Formats: sequence, C-alpha cells, structure tokens
Amino acid sequence: MISSPQTSTGSSVPATAVVREDGRACDQLRPITITRAWSAQAEGSALIEFGNTRVLCTASLTEGVPRWLKGEGKGWVTAEYAMLPRATNTRSSRESVKGKIGGRTHEISRLIGRSLRSIIDTKALGENTIVLDCDVLQADGGTRTAAITGAFVALAEAVKWAREQGLIKKNAQVLTDTVSAVSVGIIDGTPMLDLPYVEDVRAETDMNVVVTGSGDFVEVQGTAEGAPFKREELDALLDLALLGTAELTRIQREVLEASA
Amino acid sequence: MISSPQTSTGSSVPATAVVREDGRACDQLRPITITRAWSAQAEGSALIEFGNTRVLCTASLTEGVPRWLKGEGKGWVTAEYAMLPRATNTRSSRESVKGKIGGRTHEISRLIGRSLRSIIDTKALGENTIVLDCDVLQADGGTRTAAITGAFVALAEAVKWAREQGLIKKNAQVLTDTVSAVSVGIIDGTPMLDLPYVEDVRAETDMNVVVTGSGDFVEVQGTAEGAPFKREELDALLDLALLGTAELTRIQREVLEASA
Amino acid sequence: MISSPQTSTGSSVPATAVVREDGRACDQLRPITITRAWSAQAEGSALIEFGNTRVLCTASLTEGVPRWLKGEGKGWVTAEYAMLPRATNTRSSRESVKGKIGGRTHEISRLIGRSLRSIIDTKALGENTIVLDCDVLQADGGTRTAAITGAFVALAEAVKWAREQGLIKKNAQVLTDTVSAVSVGIIDGTPMLDLPYVEDVRAETDMNVVVTGSGDFVEVQGTAEGAPFKREELDALLDLALLGTAELTRIQREVLEASA
Amino acid sequence: MISSPQTSTGSSVPATAVVREDGRACDQLRPITITRAWSAQAEGSALIEFGNTRVLCTASLTEGVPRWLKGEGKGWVTAEYAMLPRATNTRSSRESVKGKIGGRTHEISRLIGRSLRSIIDTKALGENTIVLDCDVLQADGGTRTAAITGAFVALAEAVKWAREQGLIKKNAQVLTDTVSAVSVGIIDGTPMLDLPYVEDVRAETDMNVVVTGSGDFVEVQGTAEGAPFKREELDALLDLALLGTAELTRIQREVLEASA
Amino acid sequence: MISSPQTSTGSSVPATAVVREDGRACDQLRPITITRAWSAQAEGSALIEFGNTRVLCTASLTEGVPRWLKGEGKGWVTAEYAMLPRATNTRSSRESVKGKIGGRTHEISRLIGRSLRSIIDTKALGENTIVLDCDVLQADGGTRTAAITGAFVALAEAVKWAREQGLIKKNAQVLTDTVSAVSVGIIDGTPMLDLPYVEDVRAETDMNVVVTGSGDFVEVQGTAEGAPFKREELDALLDLALLGTAELTRIQREVLEASA
Amino acid sequence: MISSPQTSTGSSVPATAVVREDGRACDQLRPITITRAWSAQAEGSALIEFGNTRVLCTASLTEGVPRWLKGEGKGWVTAEYAMLPRATNTRSSRESVKGKIGGRTHEISRLIGRSLRSIIDTKALGENTIVLDCDVLQADGGTRTAAITGAFVALAEAVKWAREQGLIKKNAQVLTDTVSAVSVGIIDGTPMLDLPYVEDVRAETDMNVVVTGSGDFVEVQGTAEGAPFKREELDALLDLALLGTAELTRIQREVLEASA
Repeated sequence: MISSPQTSTGSSVPATAVVREDGRACDQLRPITITRAWSAQAEGSALIEFGNTRVLCTASLTEGVPRWLKGEGKGWVTAEYAMLPRATNTRSSRESVKGKIGGRTHEISRLIGRSLRSIIDTKALGENTIVLDCDVLQADGGTRTAAITGAFVALAEAVKWAREQGLIKKNAQVLTDTVSAVSVGIIDGTPMLDLPYVEDVRAETDMNVVVTGSGDFVEVQGTAEGAPFKREELDALLDLALLGTAELTRIQREVLEASA
Repeated sequence: MISSPQTSTGSSVPATAVVREDGRACDQLRPITITRAWSAQAEGSALIEFGNTRVLCTASLTEGVPRWLKGEGKGWVTAEYAMLPRATNTRSSRESVKGKIGGRTHEISRLIGRSLRSIIDTKALGENTIVLDCDVLQADGGTRTAAITGAFVALAEAVKWAREQGLIKKNAQVLTDTVSAVSVGIIDGTPMLDLPYVEDVRAETDMNVVVTGSGDFVEVQGTAEGAPFKREELDALLDLALLGTAELTRIQREVLEASA
Repeated sequence: MISSPQTSTGSSVPATAVVREDGRACDQLRPITITRAWSAQAEGSALIEFGNTRVLCTASLTEGVPRWLKGEGKGWVTAEYAMLPRATNTRSSRESVKGKIGGRTHEISRLIGRSLRSIIDTKALGENTIVLDCDVLQADGGTRTAAITGAFVALAEAVKWAREQGLIKKNAQVLTDTVSAVSVGIIDGTPMLDLPYVEDVRAETDMNVVVTGSGDFVEVQGTAEGAPFKREELDALLDLALLGTAELTRIQREVLEASA
Repeated sequence: MISSPQTSTGSSVPATAVVREDGRACDQLRPITITRAWSAQAEGSALIEFGNTRVLCTASLTEGVPRWLKGEGKGWVTAEYAMLPRATNTRSSRESVKGKIGGRTHEISRLIGRSLRSIIDTKALGENTIVLDCDVLQADGGTRTAAITGAFVALAEAVKWAREQGLIKKNAQVLTDTVSAVSVGIIDGTPMLDLPYVEDVRAETDMNVVVTGSGDFVEVQGTAEGAPFKREELDALLDLALLGTAELTRIQREVLEASA
Repeated sequence: MISSPQTSTGSSVPATAVVREDGRACDQLRPITITRAWSAQAEGSALIEFGNTRVLCTASLTEGVPRWLKGEGKGWVTAEYAMLPRATNTRSSRESVKGKIGGRTHEISRLIGRSLRSIIDTKALGENTIVLDCDVLQADGGTRTAAITGAFVALAEAVKWAREQGLIKKNAQVLTDTVSAVSVGIIDGTPMLDLPYVEDVRAETDMNVVVTGSGDFVEVQGTAEGAPFKREELDALLDLALLGTAELTRIQREVLEASA
Repeated sequence: MISSPQTSTGSSVPATAVVREDGRACDQLRPITITRAWSAQAEGSALIEFGNTRVLCTASLTEGVPRWLKGEGKGWVTAEYAMLPRATNTRSSRESVKGKIGGRTHEISRLIGRSLRSIIDTKALGENTIVLDCDVLQADGGTRTAAITGAFVALAEAVKWAREQGLIKKNAQVLTDTVSAVSVGIIDGTPMLDLPYVEDVRAETDMNVVVTGSGDFVEVQGTAEGAPFKREELDALLDLALLGTAELTRIQREVLEASA
C-alpha cells in the first residue's frame, strides 16, 4: 500500500433546538472521522469513528472466486463483523473462545455484505474476491452503520488498488454508487439521528437505514423496542436517516478524493 | 392438552387485475390454513400453511425464568426457528450435523422472538418462560412470516392453558395485542403480496413486515435484492403489507375464538 | 412429485386376554397410519404414525455417489434421525443449538441406515445416492421402529420415481425385499408388542427387531433395562416381534400398491 | 493402589474340527490375558487382551453423584470408550482434533455403561460415581467385548478399594453378578466365536452378546452385514456366545481371586 | 477512565556497525511507541507499536475471582491473545468462524498470562480478577513480545485505577516489578535484536525472552528453526535480549510516570 | 512389523550427595525403559517409561504429503500428543468429549513436532508423511520430554521400515542426528534433573530442554514458576540438562542398535 494515512472528518450542521446529552441537535451526526489507509497491509482500509465508536475496516482483495461462482466471469464481495472483547463497557467473552459466533454477529456480517454488494457491479469486478473485515475497537452505539460507511471507503480503496495492479480493467465501472448507513430512533417521542449507546438503550423504536449516494434505499430495518410504531413515525425516521446519510456520503467522497 | 385440533382457513379477496403464476392477484394472500392443537404434547401449538409453506409452531411453557431475570416478577419469551433438511427442493445439511447454526437461522429466530415479545406484557406473564419452536416442514417462500403468524396462535394457546392451570392470574392481560407478518416484494416493477419461492427469487426488493392487530409496525425489514429502491416503492410495499396482515389477523382471531 | 397423498392404516387383531392401559392386547399393534407423498418436494416421503408417535420420513435421491464409492457402479443409502425439540412431553434442547449430536441420535441414524441397506441391491441402484431423513414430529415410544417402517415406504417411492425418470434401469430389482421394525418388551413378566412411552419406561427388557418381508432378521437389539433376561424370554419376544412386523409388512404393501 | 500387577490368562479348549486362519476351532476364544492393576493411579484397572486386541480399562471412583441423582442414596456408573489413532492398521484422526465424537464411539460407550450397570446395585454403591475408561491401545476385532470384559475387572477392583477405604459399607453387595461379552458371527455359513478383524469383515452376520456370570443376557445385538439371518442362525450364535462368556467368566474370577 | 491518551516512545541507541534492511544496528530496537489510555472503556489500556507491529492491550478488572480461587484472599490475572484476520500480509480465517482457537494462539495467550503473573503479588491484589486482552491490529514480527510489554502498561494502569476506586488497599504493593519482552534471533550467523517479519522467517534460531525490570528471567523460549544451536549462541542471544528489555523497561516507566 | 518387542533400559549414575524423595541424586535420571515395536500395527513404535511416566509413541508413515507441500520433493513430519483421561491422579475430561483440544495439548504437540523436524532431512525423506502419536498412558511428570525421546525411537524405526520397503532410497541420510529431551528445575534452590510430579509442582523454575545427540540445543523452554530466575541458575540448569540428554541418547542408540 503506497498511500499514506489520510483523514477526513465532518459533522452535519445542527438545525433544531432540542439539545441532547452530548449537546447535539436531534438531526445532527456525532463527529465523524475517517482515516484512510490506516493499515499498512490491506489492499484497502479505513479507521472510522462515529463519536466514540471506532471500527477498523479492511478490504482484502484476492484473485479468484469461491468454487460455486467459478467460470461466470463475476467477482464476489463478502463481509465479517466482530467486536474486540473489551470494545464495550464490560468485557464480553471472545466468540473464538466460545467456539461459535453469536446470532447478532452473523446478522450484522450479512447486513454489511448485502449493503456493499448493492453498489458493486460484480461483472466489472471480474473474477476477484473482496472480503471486508469490520472489527469494532470501541463500541458506543451505531457500530454496524459505522462499519458499512467505513467498509465502503476500504472497498473503494481496494478497487483502486486492483485497477492500478491491472487486476481490474481500466475503464470498468466496478462501483455503481457509494453507500453509507446511519441509525435513527425515537426517544421520548422525538426522532433522533445517530444514536450513541446511552440513547440506543432508551429508544422506543430503533432503525438502521442503508442508503446509496443517490439517496435510494438499500436496507431499512426498523424494530419496535418498546411499543409498536406508527406509519408517521416510520416516515419521520426515514427523513432523518436520509439527512444523515447525505452528510456521510459527502465525507466519504472527500476522503476518497483526497486519495485520488 | 385437552383441545382437539381445529382449523381455520382464509385468503384475502382479489382486488386487482394482474394475475400471477398461481392465479392470484397482486394483493392476494395464498390460501392460509391454521390448525390449532396439532401437537398432543405442547402447551400450545399450531400447524400453519401459507400455500405450500408449512410450519409447525409449538409453545413450551415452563415455570420459572432464566437466572438473569430471576426475582423481577417478569416472564420471558423466546423463539427458535429451524428447517427440516428436506423442507426445500434440494436437501440441505442438518445444522446439528454441521455442528453450528447458520446466520440465517439465528437471524430469523431472533426476529420471531422480538415480534412476539412486542405484544406480551411480561409482568402479566409472571415468572414463566415460553419457548416458541417454529420448525419448517415444507418451504415455499415466506417461512419466517408464516412462523410469526403461527407462533402467535401457539403462544395464545399456551397462555390460555397457563391461565386454566392457575400459572397466570385470571385477569392478567398477558397479550396486549395480536401479531402477524407477511412478505411483500417488487417483481418486474409491480408490488406483490405474500411471495412464494418462485417469486421471491425474482423480486428486486423484498420486505418482511410484522404488524400488530391494531395495524402498528413491529418490524420493517426491506432489502434491495437487485437495484436500490425508492421512497415511493417502500410506501407501496407497506400499504400492501398492511392489507395482508389485516387478513391474517382476522384468520388468527377466528381460529382462537373457535378454541375459546 | 406427481402422486397425491394417500393413506393406509391398520392394526393387528387382538389374540390374547390381558388388556393394556390403552385397551390393546399384548400382541396387538397400536393404530398404524402411513400417509404416502406427504411432502410435495421429496422424491419419496411418508408420514408414519404408530399411535401418537409421528415420524416424517423423506427420501432425497441425487445422482452420483460419495467420492470413496465413485466408479464402482454402486449406489449409496444413508439415514439421519432427529427429533423436534417439543416432540416429547418436556422440551429438550436442539442438537443444532448444542452444537453436537447426541449418542442416541447417532445410534438410531446408524440403525436406520443399516436396516434399509439390508434390502437394497446397490448395484441395481446404480450410482445414485438416497438420503432418508426421519424427523420425529411427535414421540410416544417406538420412534426408531416407526422411522424404519416409514423410511422403507419413502425409499420405495423414491426408487419408483427414479425409475420413471430413467435414473434407474427399467428392470433393475433395486429393492430385494421390504423391511419393517417393531419394539417388544417384557412388562411385569409379560411380553408385549409395540410399546408406547408409558410402557417403555416400565419394561424390564426392551427389544427392537428389524425384519424383512420374508421374515428374516436384519437387526435384533435386546437390552436388559432391569434384570438380565433368560433365553426363553428372548424367544418369546422374538415371536411377538415377528407377529408385529408381518402386520407392518402388510400395511406397507397396501400403501405402496395404492400408489402403483 | 497397593496391589501389584497380576495376570490371568486362558483360552477355551477347542471342540470342533474346522480350523480357522489363526488355527483356532470355531468355538474357541483367542488367547485371553487380563493384567490387573496395570495402572498405578486408578482405583481399579485392567489391561485386557483378546489376541492382538488390547484395551486398557481404568475405573475412577469419586465420592458424590451427578446433580440429577443427588439425595437418592444411589451411586452412578458410566463408561467412555475410545481408540488411539494408531490402534488400527491405518491411522485415523483423533476425535479430539475433529472436535466431535463419532457415532460408533458414542454407541459403544453407551453399551459398556449399560452392561456394567446391569450387575451393579446402585443402592449398595452409595453416593459414589465410577467412570470406566476403556481405551483401545491396539485393535484387532472385538474391542467392545474386550472392553466390557476388562471393565468389569477394573470395576470390581475399584469396589474392593472403596470398601477398604470405608467409602462403601463392609457388607454391601455392590456387584450382583459378573459380566462379560464376546462377539460371534457367521462366516461362509459357519458360526464362529470371537472374531478377529480379518474374520469380522467377512462375516455375513455379526453379533455382540453380553452375558452375566449366571448365564443370563444383558445385551444381544445382532446385525445382518450381508443377507438377513434366519432364526436357526440366531440360535446357533447365541449358543456359541454363551460358551465363550462362560470361559471369560472363569478367567475374570481367577484374576480377581488372585487379588483378593 | 479519566486519564487522557499519552504516548511515550523510544529506541535503543545503535552500538554496532552491521546495518539491517531497515537501517538498524544488530542490537537496536525498532521505534517503540506506547500510547496509554487508548481505550475509553477499559480500566487500563495501551496501544503498543514495535515498528509496524501494533497491539491493542486492554486490562479488564472485575471484583471477585473464579470459583476455584474463592475465599483464599487472592486475585487472578489471565490473558487472551488474538490477531485480526487482516493483521497479516494475507488474510487468515477468523478463529471464531473456524469455531476453534489454534495452537499458536493458545500458546501465546498462556505465555502472556504467565509473564504477567510473575510480577503480581496476588495476595496484594485481593479478590479481584484482571483479564488482559492483547489484540494484534497489525503484525510485523514480535507480536507476542510487544503484547507482553504493552500488557504490563495496561495492567499497571488498571491497578492504579483500582487503587483509586478503593478496590485495592492504598499501600498494597501489587506489582512486585515491571516486565517486558523482546525477540532475538540469529540471522546469517549474526545475533540480532527485535526481529521484524522479514528477519523472523530467515532466522536460524529464534528466541523470545521475558525479563523483569530487575533483569531476571521470567521466560526463555529458544527454538532452532534451522540447525540446532550451540551454547555460545544461546549466550549471545541472552545478552542481546537483556539489552533490549532494559530499554523497554525504561520506556514503560516513562509512560507510566507521565500518567502518575 | 517384523521386529519383535525389545527393551533397553538405563539410568545415569549418581554423582552428588543430596538425595531426593525417590532416593535419586540431583543429577540422576529416573529408571528409563524403552520398549521398541510395542505396537503390532504401526510402522514404528516405542513404549517409553521415565519412572512411572509411560508414553506410547507410534509413527505412522504414509506415502504422499499434504497438498501445500506437493511437488517439492520433500516429506513432512508432525506430531500429536494426548493424555488418557485417567493417566493422572484424578480423572480429567476427554478432549474429544469437550469438543476441543486444550492449550497445553496443542503446545506440547507443536513442541514434539518441531523437535523431530530438527533432525530430519525432509529432502531425503522424499514425499512421505510421518505422524508421531504420543499418548500418555500414565503421567508422573516429564511427559513431554519422555514423548520426544520415545518418538525419536518410533521415528527411527519407521524410517528403517520405509527403507526396507523401498519407500526411501537406500543411502538417503534421513536422520541427521538423534534427539532427546529432559526436564530440569530448581527446588529449594538446588538444580535437579528429570522431575517427577511431586518435584514438578514444587519447582521454582522449570525448564524443558531438547538436545541433539551431538549436544546442540533444539529447544530451551524455561519458565519461572515462582520467582524470576538468574543467569547463573539458567546456566546450571542447562548443564544438568546436557548431562541427562547424553544418557538418554546412549539408551536410544542401544535400543535402536539392538533392532538393526
């Protein structure tokens, strides 16, 4: 990896009056930092921070595809999510020690994989495989949305690297769009953007929304934590999520352009 | 279990002109059959059919709660989903033989558990535990939505049984509402209700929606299988889902009233 | 699968005076029901009931054989037995959740496989593999004997299907005989046929006998649960078992002829 | 363990004319050697040899019983069977390395446990637990029957030790009988006793018989390896097995008396 | 954690003429950086860098000890080492996905635990448990020695925190010394200090040495990778290791004093 | 295996005055016995005894190498160490039953493998694989050092067998040296050779040393169990270890020459 680490940061401008515990407005993201090329070894990498949430995303690109995909001229993109045992406030057991991966880990890994595949043209990728590893170094809410947002940057870097290496054709349009994700939730009846842990546990409804750079939905996962939620609440949360992902898209582009 | 098996069936009336491979309208459910008390041994049970999809749902109620919940005067409800190896068109390996549960199985088990907990007052349940087992005997799309819909009936039966046994107070309002679920998807640009396998694989967008009897949302899980989807498409799918769950609610009530 | 579900039932005629808890004579089977083609997807299937014991048997036939058998011009038949968690009176943990298969499950799977291989001419089967899945939906004693008896019907159906598909030669005599199984035991000194759960736990000696349609033994597994047993007792139990399997053979033939 | 190693050997006298590959008559055991107190650490132990088959049997006696048996004033006896990877002609993978125990291992462990429990009065044993470990150091057919026969000697030694230690009452009749086991089979139509590996693979019918010192049956497990077997064949095999276990009983008594 | 991140760095002064690929002298450490309090959540933490090797060390202190140590008035210290899948040049599979921990991981975890226990007075620690997690974020040789060196800093911080919280008595001398570790090896006949990956693979002899602040040995693990090594070579390597650990001790003290 | 079992024994002559619990001098080995060709089935085998420690070592030689080594004209040597559950004073659970191998087992297996590979010329071995199984039948300290010493004899036998079979070229110098191992430790300030269990638990410092027949080091693993150890102590222990391995080398040669 020739490119040296580079960081882009940002935070959406507050627009409402209600102030949260950390001083943010309801529709404001936490401070966002993306450090490109954090790893000296991966084909693409990014350390992403959503406030205190820190996720190290690496993209490993290898030639060839899994057996079941061979000969179709298509590539493959998959993801694995994990959390260091002391990423959280109290230490949890390692999944490697327990000998099996928990349901939550599986679910998030699958979500990240689907999200990134939605903006990849696997034909253009050719018979290459990219594995995105998203390891949560510190967790303070929104780890899966930070992971998706950071994994996109790592993926874009890996694609760029592969193009330079001649593994991908020069003009191939591998990435059809950008993709980012944010959490939204209703707390005490108020829809809020990008929940840290303290807000997450209090949320009546919790939603993770994955959105392309063009503003279309890739995933919408809403869950009633307390009472079931109404159609209007769903609509308000989606509005807020689109606001947040627009800002994340801007930061992603900035950090990638800096590396171009 | 004293109650003898009893079946309620139903299917929403077609309202549109476009006809599907199986002759249904876009906003029509497959034939729905719920057979109450299918199992002679469980405290509550239901064999539910959404067309060719058949799921056996049993509710096992035991006194006491997991250690971490002891002494709080609350009950616990959880769910496990599984598929027989030959429920599908080609045989898949047993997860017990592989020695680990796949990500999809975990994810669906967690979804079913959350869905049922959303309409349970755990205080009213008292220190009792209910495990819902949803075993897919035959799979033809929509197994998770059939499982949620059937599991509710098994759960209601188990609660009724516990009340008769004196394990739950006579007037305790354990169930705060009913809950059912349906899949919706966009196929060739047209939103469609309750997708069988052949439609599921063709859908550009796939959504599973869990709704209470009152029409509020418990879970909304939309995924872009092909291209990302637009806000209008999301809205059309939600409309269709609410239509389907209203009909499922009616059938659930009918079968439960018959057992009252 | 073109054949529609079809059911054959039977129960041996009582011949002795001692009456059991469920009203049967000592040498009488429980009501037996075999529903052919219960599954819409398997190449062969049967839902078999021995009283309250219900086992879903499916036969999955695929072309080709395991690597170690390749090129020998022979087929392979194997079986897997499992029990739904709430098939029994109190729920037991799923083996997939525990991450390993118990000794009893392994032992019964192996028994079923050996039993069916005893009446298969693997040369005539050609390089095809048949997996028999026997999933106990409800357990009330005799699940392994019901599984063997039902699996034979599923197997016969799959062989018929393969012949129709041209996967097996028209005149190949794949099945050299039929096979069925029954449990026998000594309770309070009296030998009894086809034990339900309440009798099974009281039996001093417990025997599972697998017998061909011609009346020869495939497996004899006798266990002293309490005191060791005498040669005369062994003889009496074998007599009783042969009586039971003769009747099971008759029912198997009836249901298969109906499908011919 | 105070008693020093001591060995008893024996072999039944030939009575028929047909001679086998190893020179034995059809109704003759292989040379049998039992070395008592082979282990310096176990409460009871025996190295047993049936020809080239060598099994190290140890009995570990600990005070107390598993939780589910507490307070009932009864003891518990269980067994574990295993094979060293190079006990056989070609090396097999360790089950500890594979991470799971195979079906065959489970099945034999369960058989050994049942066999020994059949001659134990658990009331007389008191709240003590005995674990029999049967580790096959070298395998040449009949490992499970050698294991049962040797495990009985280890068990008897452990009971004697516990009595000396005051863990079991002086006059308690813990062992109600002795128990031993032998394999029999039909080869080229002739019933034969105690099959080594080369005969075992050729046997049309294979039977393991566990018999008490009084000559009653504890387990009868007959399997048609090739063609199903007739009632007369079953009878001939049982006769032969009783002949063999009578001789094994004699050797067991001799070695135990030597240690008294 | 109140203390803000703080970094100490250092590198031993070159003393010999032979220059290595990275410009270092044979007896010179790579640039060493220790960032204290890198984690906002752990009771103690340090991000340590030995050149490109980066290990995140966290210390989790909880009241109480494992069951087997209860009531003895002593504490417990243990460690777990792991590597992110893309810490290395080519991605390796996650141990959580494989479902078991490899031998190398186990071995290093045990080494780290022993090393830290050597300088802990468990009586003074009281009934508290400290788990050291050492997660390799980037690997370039010497990960186990960096882990030990960094884990000591995390441990010291956790002890300081516990003293402030009143969990450990004010005057209790919990840490009896400091501890650090370094790798040494013979390359082309020349002993060298602190090997990066490129040197590690070429080393004929490889040694990891764990040394206290007072200069005594805690662990000496020397391995002949190519040819067996002579007594003189062993002596030269030990000399070099003591030089390196003396410098590491100085850096550890500097970073800890800065936080005092 | 044609060679019949053959035993060589030995014990170094006492040279010092301090006498240990078992009457030995500080620099004296326990009685050593090596029984060659203990197993009738392995290509090479040895039952080795260091006092009460008994390890069965077998060498399994098969043609071919693991996939990753194919075509390089080199062989492969690996080892697996295990302990019977009742090899120790109190029974421990089987690793096969627990479903995973413990860290200690892994670590010792890896140590044995490395030790034997240090004296093998894999080019001369050709594309053959040798697996050394070291199963501890009885444990009384020093099991890993006995395993290495015995495994060398099994390995040498297997190489001899392979040469006789023509699998290895007649003049190929496969073994470049012999290898043996011994434990040393400091007890009450005095360095002692070959520690049995009672001494091992009391040792302040514990060291396992693997040495070639020429007296060079293959592995040096010293651990401070209590207080860190000084350079002089390390030197004294190494002296003692070289004394012990010289005697072990003599016994190994004697037993192998007897078989030549």
